[in-house]
Amino acid sequence: MKILLIGGHGTIGKRVAAAFAGTHELITAGRNSGDVRVDLASEASIEAMFQQLGSVDACICTAGTGYYGDFHTVRQADLMPGIEGKLLGQVNLVLIGQRYLAASGSFTLTSGIAAEHPARNGAAVAMLNGALNSFVLAAAQELRHGQRINVVSPGLVEDSRERYGALFPGYNLVPMPKLVNAYILSVQGAVNGKILKVYS
Amino acid sequence: MKILLIGGHGTIGKRVAAAFAGTHELITAGRNSGDVRVDLASEASIEAMFQQLGSVDACICTAGTGYYGDFHTVRQADLMPGIEGKLLGQVNLVLIGQRYLAASGSFTLTSGIAAEHPARNGAAVAMLNGALNSFVLAAAQELRHGQRINVVSPGLVEDSRERYGALFPGYNLVPMPKLVNAYILSVQGAVNGKILKVYS
Repeated sequence: MKILLIGGHGTIGKRVAAAFAGTHELITAGRNSGDVRVDLASEASIEAMFQQLGSVDACICTAGTGYYGDFHTVRQADLMPGIEGKLLGQVNLVLIGQRYLAASGSFTLTSGIAAEHPARNGAAVAMLNGALNSFVLAAAQELRHGQRINVVSPGLVEDSRERYGALFPGYNLVPMPKLVNAYILSVQGAVNGKILKVYS
Repeated sequence: MKILLIGGHGTIGKRVAAAFAGTHELITAGRNSGDVRVDLASEASIEAMFQQLGSVDACICTAGTGYYGDFHTVRQADLMPGIEGKLLGQVNLVLIGQRYLAASGSFTLTSGIAAEHPARNGAAVAMLNGALNSFVLAAAQELRHGQRINVVSPGLVEDSRERYGALFPGYNLVPMPKLVNAYILSVQGAVNGKILKVYS
């Protein structure tokens, strides 16, 4: 399978890459790293990436972060990078990529637990994740030629404990292999239109 | 109670206005109509509206529409008016309005059934509605001084049958009084952080 992974050098992406690299043709893409460069915040950049790669059998995105900050002082300007990147970046990956994804191919996006269980200071991220989950429910009804789409919604993952653990008191750690399995299920299973929640 | 209603001349807003007008001090706001003018897509306009009105006890928003169109040709430009209006407009109403809302006051936003049960051509709207639902879960944890926030998620409402019914085959019609009750529950009840689903 020819698998395109955007964000393959991030915390989650590295693990997903390791799971597919040995047994599939894996192409990683990222803003500053990877086999090809892509700026998710630019439709033209996404289109150029797909034109360069041609047809792919799976498109996985683990890229994109959101804003964490005090709800009482956050302003729209703080929200925009996440809307343009994690949200519209992934949406555009599907809107543009549907013309390049092979028949029976799959999209796998990444949202997060904040959609349902936001932590303090996480309203902006909750918004992005909720948007992605609902978008995927709709997109799954629309894709043609047996194309599928799912979204993985991770909780606080083990590999992020040092960096983000303090932001999520009382959140259970998600073992990395369990999280990676959700991506494998989406790519190699038959599931479609699912929000694959991996919260603990 | 001093109640600010944005979108009071729309399909839903008219009914909500009628429910509160007799027994409360109702102020309607809209882009082209209402007691005060506001452009939800502009933070400055929202700020100016609240400065003009001073403290309010309840802020209800029934304004904002989204894009319906073919999933295979929709582009980011089609999504932006909904993101700037229905989504960020309502988010900014809360981010800015929290400084003007009275203690124990309430915000009531409006999302929609597409967050969970999108119709064909409704991916853009699904995205907006899912974002709003998750934002409200987070915002409810953050608001101070007893302020509350809820979001009403309507299905296909009776008054929209002629205009939108053809877009939603198989969707049950929501009686208007039942929908209005959700707004009353949010404003006059004690609920907080709830997605008030009125799907049938």
